[in-house]
Amino acid sequence: MSLDRASLIPALKNVAVRLRIDSLKSTSEAGSGHPTSCCSAADLMSVIFFAEMRYDPKDPRNAESDRSVLSKGHAAPILYSVWAEAGAFDRADLLKLRRIDSDLEGHPTPRLPFVDVATGSLGQGVCAAIGSALNARRIKSDYRTYVLLGDGESAEGSVWEAADVAALNGLDNLCAITDVNALGQSRPTMWQHDMEAIARRWRAFGWHAIVIDGHDLDAILDACAEARRTKGQPTMILARTIKGKGVASVEGKEGWHGKAFKKGEELDNALAELERQFVPAPPGVNLSLQIPKPPSRPRAVEVARPVAAPVYKLGDEIATREAYGFALARLGEADPRVVALDADVKNSTFSDKFEKAFPDRFYENFIAEQVMIGAAMGLAARGAIPFPSTFACFLSRAADFIRMAAISNVGIKMAGSHAGVSIGEDGPSQMALEDLAMCRAQPNITVLYPSDAVSAERLVALAAYHAGPVYIRTSRPKTPVIYRNDEPFVVGGSKVLRQSGADAVTIVGAGVTVFEALKAYDELKASGTSVRVIDLYSLQPIDRDGLIAAGRATGGRFLTVEDHYAAGGIGDAVAEAVADAGFTVERLAVREIPRSGKPDELLDRYGISANHIVSAVRGLLASAHAHR
Amino acid sequence: MSLDRASLIPALKNVAVRLRIDSLKSTSEAGSGHPTSCCSAADLMSVIFFAEMRYDPKDPRNAESDRSVLSKGHAAPILYSVWAEAGAFDRADLLKLRRIDSDLEGHPTPRLPFVDVATGSLGQGVCAAIGSALNARRIKSDYRTYVLLGDGESAEGSVWEAADVAALNGLDNLCAITDVNALGQSRPTMWQHDMEAIARRWRAFGWHAIVIDGHDLDAILDACAEARRTKGQPTMILARTIKGKGVASVEGKEGWHGKAFKKGEELDNALAELERQFVPAPPGVNLSLQIPKPPSRPRAVEVARPVAAPVYKLGDEIATREAYGFALARLGEADPRVVALDADVKNSTFSDKFEKAFPDRFYENFIAEQVMIGAAMGLAARGAIPFPSTFACFLSRAADFIRMAAISNVGIKMAGSHAGVSIGEDGPSQMALEDLAMCRAQPNITVLYPSDAVSAERLVALAAYHAGPVYIRTSRPKTPVIYRNDEPFVVGGSKVLRQSGADAVTIVGAGVTVFEALKAYDELKASGTSVRVIDLYSLQPIDRDGLIAAGRATGGRFLTVEDHYAAGGIGDAVAEAVADAGFTVERLAVREIPRSGKPDELLDRYGISANHIVSAVRGLLASAHAHR
Repeated sequence: MSLDRASLIPALKNVAVRLRIDSLKSTSEAGSGHPTSCCSAADLMSVIFFAEMRYDPKDPRNAESDRSVLSKGHAAPILYSVWAEAGAFDRADLLKLRRIDSDLEGHPTPRLPFVDVATGSLGQGVCAAIGSALNARRIKSDYRTYVLLGDGESAEGSVWEAADVAALNGLDNLCAITDVNALGQSRPTMWQHDMEAIARRWRAFGWHAIVIDGHDLDAILDACAEARRTKGQPTMILARTIKGKGVASVEGKEGWHGKAFKKGEELDNALAELERQFVPAPPGVNLSLQIPKPPSRPRAVEVARPVAAPVYKLGDEIATREAYGFALARLGEADPRVVALDADVKNSTFSDKFEKAFPDRFYENFIAEQVMIGAAMGLAARGAIPFPSTFACFLSRAADFIRMAAISNVGIKMAGSHAGVSIGEDGPSQMALEDLAMCRAQPNITVLYPSDAVSAERLVALAAYHAGPVYIRTSRPKTPVIYRNDEPFVVGGSKVLRQSGADAVTIVGAGVTVFEALKAYDELKASGTSVRVIDLYSLQPIDRDGLIAAGRATGGRFLTVEDHYAAGGIGDAVAEAVADAGFTVERLAVREIPRSGKPDELLDRYGISANHIVSAVRGLLASAHAHR
Repeated sequence: MSLDRASLIPALKNVAVRLRIDSLKSTSEAGSGHPTSCCSAADLMSVIFFAEMRYDPKDPRNAESDRSVLSKGHAAPILYSVWAEAGAFDRADLLKLRRIDSDLEGHPTPRLPFVDVATGSLGQGVCAAIGSALNARRIKSDYRTYVLLGDGESAEGSVWEAADVAALNGLDNLCAITDVNALGQSRPTMWQHDMEAIARRWRAFGWHAIVIDGHDLDAILDACAEARRTKGQPTMILARTIKGKGVASVEGKEGWHGKAFKKGEELDNALAELERQFVPAPPGVNLSLQIPKPPSRPRAVEVARPVAAPVYKLGDEIATREAYGFALARLGEADPRVVALDADVKNSTFSDKFEKAFPDRFYENFIAEQVMIGAAMGLAARGAIPFPSTFACFLSRAADFIRMAAISNVGIKMAGSHAGVSIGEDGPSQMALEDLAMCRAQPNITVLYPSDAVSAERLVALAAYHAGPVYIRTSRPKTPVIYRNDEPFVVGGSKVLRQSGADAVTIVGAGVTVFEALKAYDELKASGTSVRVIDLYSLQPIDRDGLIAAGRATGGRFLTVEDHYAAGGIGDAVAEAVADAGFTVERLAVREIPRSGKPDELLDRYGISANHIVSAVRGLLASAHAHR
């Protein structure tokens, strides 16, 4: 920025006034929203977007562009105002805020080209910003990432996970700003305006913390410059602000969170008060035309080389979690965009095989699953193909992040190991029995579940190049390779493993239960009953046609068996898929809180072993005979 | 403890050696487990249980007894050893560790009488400990709560949520100890043995932090005494320890996490080494017989007075979330055990009505859902009836805590407001569309979903006195009162709102969709089609018999309609319930990521409005005719 401060400050001041005016107008027009949360941030936003960041309003996704994340997503109206001010779209559109025919939603989502990840669940944007900053390193770009937090959201543990990870990685290309307006939704925030108490926390976590008056434009400019000069650690600018700043009647008042000014006198008076705050404009200054553009840098397009077929032998015993690790390392070889993240269980998820091969593209998050998923979201939004992994049960620690990843529709490729009771002796706290329900609940999460090493390797590659979020569920026990290396797999497919012209029941399993179904097949076959066995390696989308065809061939009799609780998993998925054809489904699933024991003991105790499949098939056939 | 240090120290030393020996033996016998994580904690556990805590090994649930929570749950073997040493059960049982016929599971669960809440998902025990400490205040007991954390788990954000809440509440009856052994599962921990870096964090968060050598029994005794003397703030004892302490070959070594010693030479050598560490015993000292018992205090049994019937008028318009608040306040009047927790949205969930009436029994957690649920678990484990509330979508922030609450089977009564697209303009980040899937997935969580104020009030009371965890889903929009104040509700029930002898389809809704179904009923009736309308206010358990009876009366035709994603909610619940009768279910649900808009616009756009119900009913009947 070549302007001198004397010209810059009044120009920034006037921008801030316009941002406040827009925020009031748009929320009043919508009849809801958070104008006072915008007003506290207006001076900060003015400086960040019109004196600090390097970006092209017409090309917001530019790879070299500085990034901004609005972690306090309820201040969406001011974000929209900023981009209108910058010329990204017509200012008049701001009045469509929160309308069903507008992408200017109540909280930001990536339907808008200038939003990388959806925010509005607090304490998440700062985690995504870490992913964005890590990505700058990965592609060797000097773009910087700015993230605006609220003080209220800093109570979220995820913020402190982010604080640790950013400090450990020495992310000096990350500049966070906290809008400390001291008021939450329902009451004053925890530490209110005790700026030193807040600064003490960030410093203890290894950040460079700067305390300023968040309405002092000079101070904001200086703090941003200081952040740019700070090397080896991330910076947190703690800005003391007044909620509702600019409208005296609401400044610092409780009861004004998430409340629009009433159209008419209330709004008009507030707007008039703001209009009076414009200052004489410096001649010839138009900040929106003077935003520094990102450098145009020749950059090789990152492309994948072809991945060779797996190299397993039929019958070899290998756990799908281990095959996942091998597959990820091979994929990493083929595609520089592939990165991996873990939460101190890389030697259990086997993501350590990737780390060994590509240490620069592996990010350790220690035992902090929220920042792991959040950082993956930021990485994915910036062009990487991130595979975050941990025990499947501990992905639930990041369930709200996974929800926001679905809303963002970002391409994170989650891998959860140690699914189900088949992990054995560690007991229920380490068993994922609700992970399929969690991921299937999101309509745009693809859910894959390999049973052997070959399918694991194929599904990892499919996950990488399938648009949007994907979940891969892997298992702890070793299972035999049942597929040839050239076996094709597709998202939305299934495999018929056993069939004949005389099958009486279709058994649908996935993962470890495929092998229970195959054992049951043998036992039933020996006693003269023929069954069809399907490996449902893609739960979402699901192979509806294949399942219905199997049902038609087996008298409409279905039996599902899953190492998962009864609700939300394979049984429910198959039941919905075949309901249109009029078929119902009998389900075997874990129906109580399990305990520690040996894997085989547990499969049997909780009703999902080969024995139980055989009994259930016989039960289905007996009842079919009875009804004839 | 009246022993002098000279006698006490060798006795404690010998206990610690026995704890290490037990931990090695039991894990080797099991063939798995975490002996080295036990060894680092042995001196700490020896002091806490045999020189510090006041409890009765034969009556571990005593209301006045000091509490211990093993937040680093993978050190379970040493917890079991401690209780065997204290005389709670036969030491020989320790060798049944991790067996299916033993309650000595891989990680602690409340199947054991001395475990309040299940641990094993890291960073949770410290949150439960806060609930335990808050409960001491509630019942005016001077019992103290001790919680042992690992340093690795301190990367979890939930630990810092706990740090904030404990400090804000000045919980000087809480003493946390971190076993800083510097090694995680897969690598050294984030801050390893940089004790000052760790202490800085806790002090910044307002705790009294004491750094000690965790193998110096004198220092541990002194630190515990200092913690007891510290008023107005919680204490964190940061104990520098060596993982595997006592067995030189594994001390401080990577690659020994979660690994048992091999039976035979490897184990025998380690045990011999430990045996050599016994010191001459002071004569006449048996610490397990000298544990100070909790005071026996006359204490009135806390009982509920009868709750009067609701006082609504048919047709009055009131949101179920608001009725929830009224109901909770009325319940609080009747029962002193009822407490409420919120996460800075009390004026949206309406838990503020309870706060107003009972400020001492209301706990504000600010925007920190994990510690809210964790604290509720601790409160419930100690006899309170806690109702934690927030937006239903933000309960997903605590999904892993909810999973552990289910494993613990503790009576937390969660209330999630702002369900579904019917919240309107705030957009998808604020809409819960997967909460039913999350809660139903757990086999022992009761899921209730009121449609009007009367049912909301009745379900709140049912939740309070139904054993185990309960989830109540409330809605943002106002809905008319449809039930009389004396209408009976039961867990596992449903209500038939419209029926005739000629019903063609059973429509099942809950919450806001009940009213869409009623509108559709009117429209269909006007055009000559009669349908049955069911309010499924209890999703889990579900009224299987009632649903099947309705199906039999309506040609087996079911239509479900829910303000929730398609997987894991009402459609799946009803489909499984009626599958045995051979019925399939047609479902209306939200099937894509929604956007901002007015509630009615969104109900219609996402296919769950009265219009869509009418069309779906007509479609079902047309296809029924076509198939005749």
